Amino acid sequence: MIAGGQAQRGVAEIGVSTTYLERLGARSKKAGTVLCLGLDPDLDTLPAGFSRDLAGLERFAALLLEAAVPFAAAVKPNLAFFEAHGSAGLAALERLRGGLPSDLPVIADAKRGDIGSTAARQATALFDQLGADAVTVNPYLGADAVSPLLERIDRFAYVLCRTSNPGAGELQDLVVAADRATDSPAERLHERVARLATGWGPGGTVGLVVGATAPDELARIRALAPGLAFLVPGVGAQGGAVEPVLEHGPAAVGPAGGQPGHGLLVSVSRGIAGAASAGAEGDPFERVRAAAAEWAARLPVLP
Amino acid sequence: MIAGGQAQRGVAEIGVSTTYLERLGARSKKAGTVLCLGLDPDLDTLPAGFSRDLAGLERFAALLLEAAVPFAAAVKPNLAFFEAHGSAGLAALERLRGGLPSDLPVIADAKRGDIGSTAARQATALFDQLGADAVTVNPYLGADAVSPLLERIDRFAYVLCRTSNPGAGELQDLVVAADRATDSPAERLHERVARLATGWGPGGTVGLVVGATAPDELARIRALAPGLAFLVPGVGAQGGAVEPVLEHGPAAVGPAGGQPGHGLLVSVSRGIAGAASAGAEGDPFERVRAAAAEWAARLPVLP
Repeated sequence: MIAGGQAQRGVAEIGVSTTYLERLGARSKKAGTVLCLGLDPDLDTLPAGFSRDLAGLERFAALLLEAAVPFAAAVKPNLAFFEAHGSAGLAALERLRGGLPSDLPVIADAKRGDIGSTAARQATALFDQLGADAVTVNPYLGADAVSPLLERIDRFAYVLCRTSNPGAGELQDLVVAADRATDSPAERLHERVARLATGWGPGGTVGLVVGATAPDELARIRALAPGLAFLVPGVGAQGGAVEPVLEHGPAAVGPAGGQPGHGLLVSVSRGIAGAASAGAEGDPFERVRAAAAEWAARLPVLP
Repeated sequence: MIAGGQAQRGVAEIGVSTTYLERLGARSKKAGTVLCLGLDPDLDTLPAGFSRDLAGLERFAALLLEAAVPFAAAVKPNLAFFEAHGSAGLAALERLRGGLPSDLPVIADAKRGDIGSTAARQATALFDQLGADAVTVNPYLGADAVSPLLERIDRFAYVLCRTSNPGAGELQDLVVAADRATDSPAERLHERVARLATGWGPGGTVGLVVGATAPDELARIRALAPGLAFLVPGVGAQGGAVEPVLEHGPAAVGPAGGQPGHGLLVSVSRGIAGAASAGAEGDPFERVRAAAAEWAARLPVLP
């Protein structure tokens, strides 16, 4: 339980006096960027000098965090890459989280959501045990299945809206009928999710995930839900470009009042971690550092 | 890694020569029931004599399994109830799983699904590390986000279709437009999911989750996807009744050829675990045993 204790100390340091978006805004302003560092380390892509086991993976993840975190507004560990190593992998993530700076928002990319009694345990697992500031949640079960994850005013949930995978449209682009009760027109399912999500949570605890691979949808959804914050994965390795993401409103001119953190948060994973393995010059730490600095500069918080 | 090793030994014992539905069918026939034992132990509901910590929870879960497993066709641990205790909780589940009989199918109720590279790690986590025979998956991201979880011919995934929570209909009952490409009429989203899921996976590795709280929908979905196996949660504590579930075709007369295991698998959690705390007479083990026997008898495999 030592690791759990470390994570909980992190939580206590966060305090409950600030919202997630306030903390994200402060960190984003300090780092000068809306770059979110994705953390999904994999045995197959460890650079030379790291053993191809969980110990090597944890050591590489620690290097990645030490090198890149100074340039990031937030960090987003994907839990599956740790859970793939069983409870020992989750313990490694708990240790890594315990070592992060207290002003760095941590987004647990877990895509949870379940019937209420289960979602409450998911909230305990992610917020209390792991010490996450924010989580990603799947909307398919409806508001009551995510509400335990968005009812804490000091935490946050990004609801999957239009994801970055190739088959995202199979369900998310289906056209749903107009609904008078919610004053909704006929629209695509992901647009309805954006519309519904604006009414979820006590206010200020809900955002949306929209992949960079769907820039047109992102523009429409930002117009549809101007008060929400957006987490944008899929830049780089998944094929999404930065420019179309930033085109419809730069990051700092956030739709909800212009505070940094209210607009876009753009996640980059392999584009930074992969720099450790690319090329032979320099050491992995410096290559990762340079890649993180470059991505941060490409994703500025504009004045 | 000791616990992981235990789970993997369980996997090796399963072998790859049988499908999940064959194993479920054999076990269901042997136990004479389509009862699936839900495993979601909670500190707040531990009976007297069990310490209100993870050790007490693991000891109670072990008692529950020992008492009820002989009457069950499968067991369904809900991962969130273990993850709520961090990596130590997941380690407890790994130990519990390692102690289960090799002929008992284990369904990891995790509701996963993510972009392909992540879903592949979820498959490693659930199938290889935990040794699950089957998992539950969320369809919102589309087929490519669940395919790594349903491409192994000896494993299985139940796709969330119409869930048992009160707000399930918020998205799942939305009417989606007709689609010529898939020859689909205008229908509710959960019906479209059922239709799409019949084409997912290499065949025989996909089923559906439909809550007992929606018996009319269950009847329609069974008619719409007659070749699929159904996992039915929500009986008992969540308000679903057994009779309407069994009404539209008894469990043994499975829609896909009449094999046991191809029809319904009905999950009961609190209805069995709660017996440990109820009343003062007898010891918890015997009360759980009696409750499991009673539920198994209410959910028979008919000849």
